[in-house]
Amino acid sequence: MTTSLEQPVQDDTDAAVLAVATRAREASRALATATRATKDDALRALADALVAATDRILAANATDLERGRANGMSPGLLDRLALTPERVHAIAEALRELAVLPDPVGEVVRGSTLPNGLRLRQLRVPMGVVGMIYEARPNVTVDAAGLALKSGNAVVLRGGSAAAASNEVIVDVLAQALVGRGLPGELVQSVDAWGRDGAVALMRARGLVDVLVPRGGADLIATVVREATVPVIETGVGNCHLYVDATADRADALAILLNAKTQRVGVCNAVETLLVHRDAADDFLPSALAALAAAGVTVHGDEATLRRAPLGTPTVPATDEDWGTEYLSLDLAVRVVDDLDAAIAHVRRWSTGHTEAIVTQDLRASERFVAEVDAAAVIVNASTRFTDGGQLGLGAEIGISTQKLHARGPMGLAELTTTKWVVHGDGHVRP
Amino acid sequence: MTTSLEQPVQDDTDAAVLAVATRAREASRALATATRATKDDALRALADALVAATDRILAANATDLERGRANGMSPGLLDRLALTPERVHAIAEALRELAVLPDPVGEVVRGSTLPNGLRLRQLRVPMGVVGMIYEARPNVTVDAAGLALKSGNAVVLRGGSAAAASNEVIVDVLAQALVGRGLPGELVQSVDAWGRDGAVALMRARGLVDVLVPRGGADLIATVVREATVPVIETGVGNCHLYVDATADRADALAILLNAKTQRVGVCNAVETLLVHRDAADDFLPSALAALAAAGVTVHGDEATLRRAPLGTPTVPATDEDWGTEYLSLDLAVRVVDDLDAAIAHVRRWSTGHTEAIVTQDLRASERFVAEVDAAAVIVNASTRFTDGGQLGLGAEIGISTQKLHARGPMGLAELTTTKWVVHGDGHVRP
Repeated sequence: MTTSLEQPVQDDTDAAVLAVATRAREASRALATATRATKDDALRALADALVAATDRILAANATDLERGRANGMSPGLLDRLALTPERVHAIAEALRELAVLPDPVGEVVRGSTLPNGLRLRQLRVPMGVVGMIYEARPNVTVDAAGLALKSGNAVVLRGGSAAAASNEVIVDVLAQALVGRGLPGELVQSVDAWGRDGAVALMRARGLVDVLVPRGGADLIATVVREATVPVIETGVGNCHLYVDATADRADALAILLNAKTQRVGVCNAVETLLVHRDAADDFLPSALAALAAAGVTVHGDEATLRRAPLGTPTVPATDEDWGTEYLSLDLAVRVVDDLDAAIAHVRRWSTGHTEAIVTQDLRASERFVAEVDAAAVIVNASTRFTDGGQLGLGAEIGISTQKLHARGPMGLAELTTTKWVVHGDGHVRP
Repeated sequence: MTTSLEQPVQDDTDAAVLAVATRAREASRALATATRATKDDALRALADALVAATDRILAANATDLERGRANGMSPGLLDRLALTPERVHAIAEALRELAVLPDPVGEVVRGSTLPNGLRLRQLRVPMGVVGMIYEARPNVTVDAAGLALKSGNAVVLRGGSAAAASNEVIVDVLAQALVGRGLPGELVQSVDAWGRDGAVALMRARGLVDVLVPRGGADLIATVVREATVPVIETGVGNCHLYVDATADRADALAILLNAKTQRVGVCNAVETLLVHRDAADDFLPSALAALAAAGVTVHGDEATLRRAPLGTPTVPATDEDWGTEYLSLDLAVRVVDDLDAAIAHVRRWSTGHTEAIVTQDLRASERFVAEVDAAAVIVNASTRFTDGGQLGLGAEIGISTQKLHARGPMGLAELTTTKWVVHGDGHVRP
């Protein structure tokens, strides 16, 4: 597809990245009409190839880890970067699990025969070329390649430079395995070799990249939104709230709070602010704050919260900055609110539109919260941690969309497709 | 919803437009939970108010027309700008027709109960605030307001400056009618008062505008794509092709060609290039070229086409520029191709992804064309002019999307909504 909007080729990097994207587009055509059997066979071949190349992958990963340690990378990031034989096995297993999921391509989304006899079908078809920009997590390289392949798309990857050696080997292994199955190796390519300029060129490859998915922190996503001229799906920033209503079952509320805050802290669906109805504050907050303290959580509370904190619990006064922060750590902002309206107003002011939860036994309160809170997921009497493709039974996910266009919430295979109207007539002309 | 990506307020225009968008967002909350009856009553009230204000609207339109004539506006653009009592009536009638369409809001798109007992529903909900940037067509002001209202959204409009007086009165009439039905007048607002800077501010109102729909020529759309940081749905550029295969029914092919080229020339679903299989060239092209000439069409042909043109038909040699041009006029590019592969290759090279058609009696050719051509609509044995919300039975449309994200092809009410996952548990936590 051509457009009048293509960027002028500014330099060698742009030209090189556009050449990669052009090869991806050519390769995607072979895949667009491939049968499910062909794609599933290829997924299993990719899994086998990764396991067979474990030693080579781990050697490359060791050089990434060494450079990361030398650069003072945090233990958390090093852990995300690190591969082991078990992790390579798990990554390959995820590809095999994709092979058993239904193929979204070819699904008839809508269809009808019009009064004039025209036959309409709206078919699900691949996007074409999916761009993916992410941080140093080699497993995302494989996940993205697998999801793209199953949904009939070519993928152009830009992983974090900290994982460059690992990703280079992984992409090579995947491409060779595709060729071994008679598919173009250009279905999986990386632009890591061109660094940050290459990433920007990818964001501007209009007419060649059909959708770009940034997966990472707020800074990465902000950069992509600012620079990109290709269509983008934003993922992931989750300033999630849990509201404990006056009528909440106190035991449920405590279990949900601890799960949502501490089950895993560095994730977008962890809770970052607790709101408590003032009628629940006296009997819920002291025990909740003690339990949070026991779990190692530092509370950033408003005055009404801090007043109810048991002696010795770690607390600091909350500021507006706390209400707006996605901690991704053992920190929690806590505020006492006058009523449901105040809780909804707080959520509306500070939500990033990811996941918002209420604990209540009041039907009207639950219905108002569901109707009036604007988020990808609104949860009643359960943990925010359920906003996840696997947990919601949707299969593998490529990210969690926090925008309203195209995909909202966990994005799986169907969200990597678009549709095509197919119209059959018998010489029909428009009157 | 807040984000860390909001643009700094650069000047008074930005501040004013952000204030408009903020009021729109507040107003949209009242509408998000409104019943269908409330919205349909309001649509009928808007229609009544427009008809009642006909004199005032026509007076404002007369000043726009006068300025347009003084500025040398073309007859075609003046015709699009001009209102008459009959046109005001037709515009109002379109609002009444919206009132009888089903409400997309509240539809349960998917739902299930998970093995752990969590109850899931994916509900269709309004976007929130829809931005619309378009050229000088006052009817689009009303269409956009009506579609936004029915789908539960507030709308912020930026019409062409050439229609500023007409739009100002129309927006005032609509807003007052909303207030008369107990709804916020801020559901329909314009930023025309702030000119081009206001339009740019609207494109950058992140967190306030949920989707921006540009509707107009390639230049307008290119500007929006370059400047916008809010999510955009591109509409409308249609370099549409008609391929006449070797086995085509010649009479069908001729009728479809004339309809697709001449039934209305200034529209995005008109055909701009005819491709003819070489085996059909000798018996199809001479009569087709004569019929095109009789209809006033100038043919821009390749050598094989020009050779077959009857004496006296208006023809010029085609260049690559012709293959890439959306004429929107009584011009047609014509090329003879060796076979189906060459036809598909030409379409792939030059298509804008709008509508592509084949005329054939060969089942395999039709199936390959449908599978291998990448466009919003692929049409077999019928006119390209059918790619239209009304013609396809989808109801009113706000534009025709040529992008792959969110909406592809005619966009109606459902395309102005997003979804929300609603999850009910009984104290569920993630294991």
